[in-house]
Amino acid sequence: MKKQKKFILQEKEIPTQWYNIQADMVNKPLPPIHPATKQPLTWEDLAHIFPAECSRQELDTEHRWIDIPEEVLEKYKFYRSTPLVRAYELEKALDTPAHIYFKNESVNPLGSHKINSALPQCYYAKMEGTTNVTTETGAGQWGAALAYAAKVFGLEAAVYQVKISMQQKPYRSSIMRTFGAVVTGSPSMSTRAGKDILTVNPKHSGSLGTAISEAVELAMTTPNCKYTLGSVLNHVGLHQTIIGLEAEKQMAMAGEYPDMVIACFGGGSNFGGIAFPFMRHSILDGKKTEFIAAEPESCPKLTRGVFQYDFGDEAGLTPLLPMYTLGHQFKPANIHAGGLRYHGAGVIISQLIKDKMMHGVDIPQLESFDAGMLFARTEGIIPAPESCHAIAATIREALKCKESGEEKVILFNLSGHGLIDMTAYDQYIDGDLQNYSIPDAEIAKNVAELEPIIK
Amino acid sequence: MKKQKKFILQEKEIPTQWYNIQADMVNKPLPPIHPATKQPLTWEDLAHIFPAECSRQELDTEHRWIDIPEEVLEKYKFYRSTPLVRAYELEKALDTPAHIYFKNESVNPLGSHKINSALPQCYYAKMEGTTNVTTETGAGQWGAALAYAAKVFGLEAAVYQVKISMQQKPYRSSIMRTFGAVVTGSPSMSTRAGKDILTVNPKHSGSLGTAISEAVELAMTTPNCKYTLGSVLNHVGLHQTIIGLEAEKQMAMAGEYPDMVIACFGGGSNFGGIAFPFMRHSILDGKKTEFIAAEPESCPKLTRGVFQYDFGDEAGLTPLLPMYTLGHQFKPANIHAGGLRYHGAGVIISQLIKDKMMHGVDIPQLESFDAGMLFARTEGIIPAPESCHAIAATIREALKCKESGEEKVILFNLSGHGLIDMTAYDQYIDGDLQNYSIPDAEIAKNVAELEPIIK
Repeated sequence: MKKQKKFILQEKEIPTQWYNIQADMVNKPLPPIHPATKQPLTWEDLAHIFPAECSRQELDTEHRWIDIPEEVLEKYKFYRSTPLVRAYELEKALDTPAHIYFKNESVNPLGSHKINSALPQCYYAKMEGTTNVTTETGAGQWGAALAYAAKVFGLEAAVYQVKISMQQKPYRSSIMRTFGAVVTGSPSMSTRAGKDILTVNPKHSGSLGTAISEAVELAMTTPNCKYTLGSVLNHVGLHQTIIGLEAEKQMAMAGEYPDMVIACFGGGSNFGGIAFPFMRHSILDGKKTEFIAAEPESCPKLTRGVFQYDFGDEAGLTPLLPMYTLGHQFKPANIHAGGLRYHGAGVIISQLIKDKMMHGVDIPQLESFDAGMLFARTEGIIPAPESCHAIAATIREALKCKESGEEKVILFNLSGHGLIDMTAYDQYIDGDLQNYSIPDAEIAKNVAELEPIIK
Repeated sequence: MKKQKKFILQEKEIPTQWYNIQADMVNKPLPPIHPATKQPLTWEDLAHIFPAECSRQELDTEHRWIDIPEEVLEKYKFYRSTPLVRAYELEKALDTPAHIYFKNESVNPLGSHKINSALPQCYYAKMEGTTNVTTETGAGQWGAALAYAAKVFGLEAAVYQVKISMQQKPYRSSIMRTFGAVVTGSPSMSTRAGKDILTVNPKHSGSLGTAISEAVELAMTTPNCKYTLGSVLNHVGLHQTIIGLEAEKQMAMAGEYPDMVIACFGGGSNFGGIAFPFMRHSILDGKKTEFIAAEPESCPKLTRGVFQYDFGDEAGLTPLLPMYTLGHQFKPANIHAGGLRYHGAGVIISQLIKDKMMHGVDIPQLESFDAGMLFARTEGIIPAPESCHAIAATIREALKCKESGEEKVILFNLSGHGLIDMTAYDQYIDGDLQNYSIPDAEIAKNVAELEPIIK
């Protein structure tokens, strides 16, 4: 066998622009609205807490291509391009005629795709005179990426990490500290929001909702401090399109074009990152590609959520966003894929789902780890629990190809490695994991009081 | 700045042969000898516990180039080539005129260079009809690599891990289990050797010596089972030359040739891997390159050891090897660089030290972590505690260049990442680490009864 396994771009071939799918969407995303006035927000409104350039990108429906700043490109070179890999061994294990490719975003210093957006967010913040950035993180992939990006652009970073996650995955806070970030378990006594929560319940173990509240409060009460977010928002997905734009060139090196593009789905950043550049050919050139977002069975917003205006956070501090949602008070089960435990889908994705440009599939936790183990033992990489969902969806499709005899070309995004999540694998091997299904009544209760979509 | 940061070989440019420096050495290594008879051992003797092909490679002083089997090359493609990276940001932080390059062996599924030898060892074992392999591991980098390699070639793997390391770095045994290996804390009740130790001391926390004894016993008492080793031996260093052979091509892409080659030093596998291919040009073409092995101050065999015949293991079960050693009963301090806590240097390296082809430097533990932190915050990669020693030695040389104004080209091997070793960084950040120096008297006591070198 002398078949090519990996497809690698040289540094000078790394794309120099991000792709803004908003410019090409037939139905543009609905605007974020103010919770009290119900008026659409402008980029100037958003720029109170986000960097101004990110705020402009958030609402930009005009420019198809957005230049990646030279300084960000220089930092991208530290780990990009990432390899496109043909999963021959996985194909063999499945005995499938499908051609399976994956984009390996796990080969970077932080171990996930999150760094692709952390770098430009910190760069823009720095250029606009900001000295401090803050964010929240659950499992810690985003927090680690932000800590690193802040360091390389000379910013101070304060990260609020969900307290229970901090205890369960202590290595991720160690990584943040190594890059110089101040990491605080949330809820904490360092903010009004945190104090209020702890006064009522001193043993509160934290949630993404409490951490967002603390980070936003810090950004609003600290001079020269901006808030950053690792998924959900349009500008985050924009930055992540570097993944798909590279993959497009690499698939051409392999002489193929994907019939299916698959990624796991939390808020949408890694899915959009790999899918949007290929979707542009579906919109503009009539290419027939199926786009599949793999969400956890225990957090089924794409398949069982409603399309409504909802808050981005549990506490209800953010603008209202038009999205497929389970309701912002929905409490996802404590699965190991911490990055997928989010109640809503990003605004662009939600419109694309509504327009039937893509669809979601639900993956039970045990099926996700079955897939991750098979992948590790064939392709040699232990995947992040989040990425296991994409692998599981890929395996489903590859087995369908085995049934039908179709030689489909499947591309999925391996968003990160699982080296900091080994306790999850231990529990799987020891038989201590379980599935979680959600009763319809629980979803109905959570979405009952949401704001209807007003066109 | 549009300078090239990374130098990447395409798959078809990956070297297809290993370089056997024994063929070019002016003074050949002395043979291993039998502890009782004092007679030199043949490859057939070694083949009782090692794969036959590895045993032949061990004593091969004739063939300069040894073909990498096609099946091993196919597996190498999973993660090779690895990038050669110009450390511009580190240079800037040091304000040095030196050009610093590093070979990034941390970008592979297992996170260190160990996989380069685990794959061929398992391949040869498989080809020779072996069904089971066994080994010992301390911190677990080698054990993880062996577990993976055994899985891809369809072998069963049994790994004895030092019990205290297993408790300190639980993620590494989780990784081994994910790849299907049976991991046993050593000393254990599964072998005669382990039972004897536990009978005397039920709370024995293990050492590399006890783990080697158990693994060797298992190999000798199990049908179709071979023993494998991750460093020290000549054939392990041979397999690792893939690192330097790639680096040689990549340095040519960068238009430079190293004035200095630096690697950390435990048994010699990653040092030999990057150094030997460049050393061949020193031997054959008169190139002037300085080769520096960075060992921990607490385990100074290269700088303060004696050149004698000594056992490879603490318990005295192996053949006698001619090496720079602190005595096989030397107990290295409990530093975090577990991979460098070994009493002796490999046979080839020892001869090269004696012939002044290379030299060692001692790095205190705190200096190693100072270096690792600076590297993480400039180049974005958290290095393994072992690799921190190479970085510290590189920084010393780069600062000398700053003094002298010399624009030297320095190449070091980043043998692995530190993501499984974050507790070490936590302790460093919290000020809980210390240096360990060794009194002369302790070294003298340990080497007093060694076998003299007989020419």
